[in-house]
Amino acid sequence: MNGAPLQSLIAGAWIGTRPALALPSAIDGSVVAHTHEEAIDFGAALEFGRRRGFIGLMALDFQQRAARLKALAAYLNERKEALYVLSRHTGATRSDSWVDIEGGTGTLYAYASLASNELPSGNVVHEGPVATLGKKGQFAGTHILVPRGGVAVHINAFNFPVWGLLEKFAPSFLAALPCIVKPATATSYLTEALVRMIDDSGILPAGSLQLVIGSTGDLLDRLESHDVVTFTGSADTAVKLRSTPNLIRQSIPFNVEADSLNSAILGPDVTPDSPEFDLFVKEVVREMTVKAGQKCTAIRRAMVPRAQLDAVAAALKARLAKVAVGDPALENVRMGALASKAQQHDVGERVRMLAEGNEVVFGAADGFAPLGEGVGEGAFFAPTLLLCRDGWANDAVHDVEAFGPVSTLMPYGDIDEAIALAARGRGSLVATLVTHDPAIAARAVPQLAAWHGRLLVLDRDAAAESTGHGSPLPLLKHGGPGRAGGGEELGGVRAVTHFLQRAAIQGSPTMLAAVGGEYVRGAAVRESDVHPFRKHFEDLAIGDSLLTHRRTVSEADIVAFGGISGDYFYMHFDEIAARDSAFGKRIAHGYFVLSAAAGLFVSPAPGPVLANYGLDTLRFVKPVGIGDTIQARLTAKRKIDRNRKDAAGVGQGVVAWDVAVTNQDGELVASYDILTLVAKRAT
Amino acid sequence: MNGAPLQSLIAGAWIGTRPALALPSAIDGSVVAHTHEEAIDFGAALEFGRRRGFIGLMALDFQQRAARLKALAAYLNERKEALYVLSRHTGATRSDSWVDIEGGTGTLYAYASLASNELPSGNVVHEGPVATLGKKGQFAGTHILVPRGGVAVHINAFNFPVWGLLEKFAPSFLAALPCIVKPATATSYLTEALVRMIDDSGILPAGSLQLVIGSTGDLLDRLESHDVVTFTGSADTAVKLRSTPNLIRQSIPFNVEADSLNSAILGPDVTPDSPEFDLFVKEVVREMTVKAGQKCTAIRRAMVPRAQLDAVAAALKARLAKVAVGDPALENVRMGALASKAQQHDVGERVRMLAEGNEVVFGAADGFAPLGEGVGEGAFFAPTLLLCRDGWANDAVHDVEAFGPVSTLMPYGDIDEAIALAARGRGSLVATLVTHDPAIAARAVPQLAAWHGRLLVLDRDAAAESTGHGSPLPLLKHGGPGRAGGGEELGGVRAVTHFLQRAAIQGSPTMLAAVGGEYVRGAAVRESDVHPFRKHFEDLAIGDSLLTHRRTVSEADIVAFGGISGDYFYMHFDEIAARDSAFGKRIAHGYFVLSAAAGLFVSPAPGPVLANYGLDTLRFVKPVGIGDTIQARLTAKRKIDRNRKDAAGVGQGVVAWDVAVTNQDGELVASYDILTLVAKRAT
Repeated sequence: MNGAPLQSLIAGAWIGTRPALALPSAIDGSVVAHTHEEAIDFGAALEFGRRRGFIGLMALDFQQRAARLKALAAYLNERKEALYVLSRHTGATRSDSWVDIEGGTGTLYAYASLASNELPSGNVVHEGPVATLGKKGQFAGTHILVPRGGVAVHINAFNFPVWGLLEKFAPSFLAALPCIVKPATATSYLTEALVRMIDDSGILPAGSLQLVIGSTGDLLDRLESHDVVTFTGSADTAVKLRSTPNLIRQSIPFNVEADSLNSAILGPDVTPDSPEFDLFVKEVVREMTVKAGQKCTAIRRAMVPRAQLDAVAAALKARLAKVAVGDPALENVRMGALASKAQQHDVGERVRMLAEGNEVVFGAADGFAPLGEGVGEGAFFAPTLLLCRDGWANDAVHDVEAFGPVSTLMPYGDIDEAIALAARGRGSLVATLVTHDPAIAARAVPQLAAWHGRLLVLDRDAAAESTGHGSPLPLLKHGGPGRAGGGEELGGVRAVTHFLQRAAIQGSPTMLAAVGGEYVRGAAVRESDVHPFRKHFEDLAIGDSLLTHRRTVSEADIVAFGGISGDYFYMHFDEIAARDSAFGKRIAHGYFVLSAAAGLFVSPAPGPVLANYGLDTLRFVKPVGIGDTIQARLTAKRKIDRNRKDAAGVGQGVVAWDVAVTNQDGELVASYDILTLVAKRAT
Repeated sequence: MNGAPLQSLIAGAWIGTRPALALPSAIDGSVVAHTHEEAIDFGAALEFGRRRGFIGLMALDFQQRAARLKALAAYLNERKEALYVLSRHTGATRSDSWVDIEGGTGTLYAYASLASNELPSGNVVHEGPVATLGKKGQFAGTHILVPRGGVAVHINAFNFPVWGLLEKFAPSFLAALPCIVKPATATSYLTEALVRMIDDSGILPAGSLQLVIGSTGDLLDRLESHDVVTFTGSADTAVKLRSTPNLIRQSIPFNVEADSLNSAILGPDVTPDSPEFDLFVKEVVREMTVKAGQKCTAIRRAMVPRAQLDAVAAALKARLAKVAVGDPALENVRMGALASKAQQHDVGERVRMLAEGNEVVFGAADGFAPLGEGVGEGAFFAPTLLLCRDGWANDAVHDVEAFGPVSTLMPYGDIDEAIALAARGRGSLVATLVTHDPAIAARAVPQLAAWHGRLLVLDRDAAAESTGHGSPLPLLKHGGPGRAGGGEELGGVRAVTHFLQRAAIQGSPTMLAAVGGEYVRGAAVRESDVHPFRKHFEDLAIGDSLLTHRRTVSEADIVAFGGISGDYFYMHFDEIAARDSAFGKRIAHGYFVLSAAAGLFVSPAPGPVLANYGLDTLRFVKPVGIGDTIQARLTAKRKIDRNRKDAAGVGQGVVAWDVAVTNQDGELVASYDILTLVAKRAT
């Protein structure tokens, strides 16, 4: 790095030539970069996002945006080493950086895959469920999710300059929301390098992603009700931003993920002999030292049964003493520096507050000397373990967060006391319960869940594969109530949903089908001489339908079906018991009805329908008795083009079919969806 | 009424003996009731809700609370006439009151039924989906929803004193949240009568519902992060309340449903000859006059193709002229009074603002004379239709809401202009599009959905059963973005979810099963000599499991299954085509595998399992070829006790079973859940 000014990416151009604030390395204090002096025209940024960005995003559909994310992840992974080089200056070890950099690209991959599996083609998600609102079935309601048409402003913390951007960008991009990202200034050089890489890739439509180096100026005051804001950082800053009058006046969604006083609880079943005892000690030390404790999810409070207090304190102390701290470039170093001297100062202040009335089990006094050259100018901090002997007598341990390698140990009596102490944090991102007793987990976790965004139950079974207390995962909700900000991020496809707008829609089934892009029972269907199973993916339209020939169910069918399946349930075979049953007579096997319906609608010769790989929401609505005559209606319900090909290079898409099986009186007897792969035309 | 003071129900006692503010009848100005002078101890109210209320609610489970709601609905319906008598004083006609009173009890019934069908026994909702997080399957994650442990404060509007309370109470009660309800003062006498009835019923646990007559005092300042607040009313008041520092500091969820400038759009396909033309005119007039236009969902802006402007104006004018306004006690009266003289004054002010630069098509000058005795002292207002010839030149029509029988007509050019004009309301609760063309709906509705909470597509097909533009329904989301407050109410089971806390949980499948109360694939199972299908509902435990005997699939099975089903798909029968297919060989029918698995695990004699009524999420994971040997594992996954009995008086519950069918290599070939009804022990 030459200390040249970083640049903002605004309205398609990189701006900034005059250096402003110097950004020093956390390792040796050398200047890594400067912010730029030039003011940003946020009006232009918003205009560019809302017009150019939105149009570009909407020119793609959910499936196509998912494909772009996947391509972007691969592009970044190939160039990741350049990011690792810069990342060291943030104070991160190689494995800290791995969490940030490859955790970030991994999140892109995860969202690409999630979206491909769970989101439709097109830009309307038919969320459902369809509810019939009138007796004749000509008025119904359902729910759709649509792109909001605004922009997302993401304001991020300094600790994960890469992951922090990507984990919010991925779901907002899928939701067709152009992003304006403002990373924390201290480590913004790493985010700038990432965004430059993304911009160079040319993979994203113009305006999908803009970058703000420095202050957000009047950006929040210029937002409108279809925009959204997310914030990751301190609870105090969250309060300030959330109070912005313009956000309140326009009901602009504001999602907060704030650092919190997360707990780890050693279960009352665990003794020093249990494998869980070591798991607890390792987890606490790991969470204290990874990223030098600069994680909003780090364990700040470690609660243990009073009888185990001394043993745990001794074990933690011994393990902390082995952690080598220093320049991450050195091979044996396990913990790097805080992100800045300002952080170093702040953490020191807070440790002093926490130490008041409490004991220091391990700290700077235990021979702290960071390894490496020039580290005297770095922002290192000693791992520090405090002991609070009475968690009810001390408020600071539940309220003051030292955002560094700092944790407080405290004893509890019974598990209910541990739960109550954890709740004194007034809302946290995560808690870990270390127990091997499912009954303890069943009692404690639902209560803890009222105060935490995520709960890890750690034991010998889970340990080998556990991703750990501190790691948010793409598939699981990140964000907790109260002090943790009350927000929700990630959590699988929910994350995309949060960035879409939900609307209820009402009308005739035909209108609901037209709007939602999905056949709704009762909507107009199209019948033709061509069997719908003989149409290629491109030629098939939602609503293409077949009403089959009929079949009268006889006793012989039941007998034969029992023979082939081995299912001799009394309802089908025992005239006497069946007479006393709810139906009063022998009835056909439900699976016979299903199989016979397939026999009615299948088109036997090879054709575009490649496989029936699943079936959803089957309900046997009415029994089918001997002598009943059944008939099936098969209707193309949903088409998803995942832009995939089979092994032979034939393009294919997913088609879900609505199946309604009726009897001679037109009554519904069975209802379900079948899922098929349908080939595209050879090109 | 004797004008005696209303009482608040706080901490289990009715308080208030000294009259304060007089509440006049909207019809004749006579005093209906007074508020009380005594101050409320909100600390005691919160303490009572959080302790006594929460304990009482948690002593029941979701299913039991659903049963209480149903009982309450029946209790109130029997006593509804007492509410109708009071309702007249709010200015409501009988049919206006029906919406409020029977709409309210109907919402209780709807939520009782929804909860019974969709929520579990117990107090933890296993939301899922379960995600395997490690390759060996010993670490997984999922999501649960749990009661928050706090209270809900519901602050309501004056227009629906009964429905407004019940529609929020129902989902919060199901979510085990004790409620403190503050109705708008003007019509609080009706809410007080309702709460008194509820209290007298003894159906609810103590502390489930408290009532505040008058001001909320310091209530909001005393709330904590596990509480929630909802508000229905004006956008201005919403902004004020949302800015409460304590709510912001503690991230207390604050759900707003504010009145907005809702639109009705006459589609470009509609001409005066179409049935949709009349539907539009009727809908606009109905929405102007129901509840004298005092609905946050009322149509405030009616947009029509420029070519139809004169015809629509004439038709609306003619229809408005026929609306009889006056004392709702008179039989021919179709529109009553505004809720108070203050409202009458306010609406008058706003009509003057709206009229500036616009024309009055119909209004007080057209011979307005309310019918009835003493109505001179009432709060009547003439239905008023304005015409804005250029919706771009005038801001007031998109911003100033006259909360009465007032609407503005405006022309548009093409449908995109209509959508853009609707969006000028900056977020609304609802819009209606009147069109008979699905292509127009498909184009317009997804765009309108970004700005509206609900969309009604009205045409000749839907009209007969339509519940109308203005009616929020229990199954559909109520609440819109931006000016409408950005909140969500109702929407089926979502409404309950909003009042629960979501947490991600991670751990071994055994731990996830223990916490979520639902078997998770990979969790420990219990096998015994008793077939699980032979256990009664009470005796069956989650995790009870059967590993069946095996069965080798032969060509004869395929042949026989083709014969009985009629399914001769080439993949099963055509050696040549099957060789060229993705699987390279003939495979067994998927439905054969399903049927044979049932044959493996069924227990033929009559027993507690009464019926298999459905099947969910079937996936054919791997093909089963000739010579493969299959085996099934059946495990009790979920038990729901709906406290129901069959026709013969036998108690029964729902049991879902996890089925995993594997092959000779232990590979999963098919995976699904089956749903059964299982009898309880005879008592």
